[in-house]
Amino acid sequence: MSLFIERLDAAARRNQSLLCVGLDPWLPSMPMFDIPAFNRAIIDATHDLVCAFKPNYAFYEAEGLSGLLALEATIKAIKDKGGLVILDAKRGDIGSTATAYAKAAFEAWDADAVTVNPYMGGDTLEPFLAYEDRGTLVLTRTSNPGGKDFEELNVGTEGRPLYEVVTKRAQEWNTASNIGLVVGATAPSELKRVRELAPDMPILIPGIGAQGGDLEASVRSGVNAEGLRVMISASRGIIYASKDADYAEAARKAAAAIREGINAELGRLGHQWQ
Amino acid sequence: MSLFIERLDAAARRNQSLLCVGLDPWLPSMPMFDIPAFNRAIIDATHDLVCAFKPNYAFYEAEGLSGLLALEATIKAIKDKGGLVILDAKRGDIGSTATAYAKAAFEAWDADAVTVNPYMGGDTLEPFLAYEDRGTLVLTRTSNPGGKDFEELNVGTEGRPLYEVVTKRAQEWNTASNIGLVVGATAPSELKRVRELAPDMPILIPGIGAQGGDLEASVRSGVNAEGLRVMISASRGIIYASKDADYAEAARKAAAAIREGINAELGRLGHQWQ
Repeated sequence: MSLFIERLDAAARRNQSLLCVGLDPWLPSMPMFDIPAFNRAIIDATHDLVCAFKPNYAFYEAEGLSGLLALEATIKAIKDKGGLVILDAKRGDIGSTATAYAKAAFEAWDADAVTVNPYMGGDTLEPFLAYEDRGTLVLTRTSNPGGKDFEELNVGTEGRPLYEVVTKRAQEWNTASNIGLVVGATAPSELKRVRELAPDMPILIPGIGAQGGDLEASVRSGVNAEGLRVMISASRGIIYASKDADYAEAARKAAAAIREGINAELGRLGHQWQ
Repeated sequence: MSLFIERLDAAARRNQSLLCVGLDPWLPSMPMFDIPAFNRAIIDATHDLVCAFKPNYAFYEAEGLSGLLALEATIKAIKDKGGLVILDAKRGDIGSTATAYAKAAFEAWDADAVTVNPYMGGDTLEPFLAYEDRGTLVLTRTSNPGGKDFEELNVGTEGRPLYEVVTKRAQEWNTASNIGLVVGATAPSELKRVRELAPDMPILIPGIGAQGGDLEASVRSGVNAEGLRVMISASRGIIYASKDADYAEAARKAAAAIREGINAELGRLGHQWQ
């Protein structure tokens, strides 16, 4: 088991939480224009309620170099609290370029895990997997409406949808036990199928809240036999719970409510934190 | 026809060139450690021999914030010479996040075109396509060995390989005529098929040189009826043609040789620059 998975399990148990807070700063939605200060307040207010934080690269890059400086400060703020950093960057490129992206994610940004896009095939993931102590989270069935366009197409000879073929291949590539998957909360039956095919991989599950995914169904379909290995990701519903000066306090309340919702469902499934 | 395509055609005609130089700085291969100075010398030495420059984001991000500052300087150097900037970033994410990535590519970096990954479906491309004066270049059959893993799987009721289905969908989404495609030079028969399905889209063709793609076959299979609309991309064979002080001069010679090879094949096909 990779160090990333050990640390993820430990963080989930310590905080009795499968919640991952997405840090997606979008200036028009924010109560202030200082991304590092905004994120630091959210992190301080929620770090003991989560298993990980997930900054999405796009929202930092959109602000240019100052946004990328804010990403650096945000990652530092997460690490200052001992938190895990899932860099949501959905990278994917040919071997030599993937080597540069892996270096960027795991050295320049020092992320604990990164999301990657499998479209270009297995060799595009190898440079990420070479960082055996980190996590590489592979997109399968995503949470957006367009997830139907290609991910759900049936693949010829196997008679399975593409996202299942990706999941099966990810299992084969997982020799260092450092691969995880991404499955949208808006597709609970696909999530269940992915969990059957990958009984112990960590699964990042975005899409509850603003995107309309079902929290309970995601927990039920997503957890492994021990009631672990999912990261239920929520962003807008937490970080923009209030647009006023009480935004951090409101974020804590919103995070606590989702964490409790997850734990209630875990209880109904017979899982208890210990 | 979008402004991007007009500008691409004009640059190709002006310089009588379908060559695109990939600016992929990798410090161990470079004769110096100053990325902006290195790139500026390459740009100055080759700008009149190319139709576009293609910086690959990964190689800048791998160096952290100083690398991203170097990307900013590189884009400025290209624009100072009136060149077109293809930002090779292979982005792809859900709608709201894709909006941030499109803003990053077309506003923060001010790229003329950007490469995107279609795995997550059509709605992930819409925010890019909304920039009607820019180009959005969609991955189809890539140049790496793993391009076989998923892109070539037969899918859906049509029994076509995934890259063909992506190409067909891209044609449907192309209402503003601002979509292009990416096809590897290592897959000339797939390139031919893509050109049949998309008779006039610009096609970015990486993979000649270090990756072993066939230059003549790429030209033959790739150009449209007028002998235009391909960007044959080469990077390592040009920018690292010499590791000594004469690297810019060597890059010019290497670029000129590929340009002549392309033009010789265009001549055999009966196309002449005018």
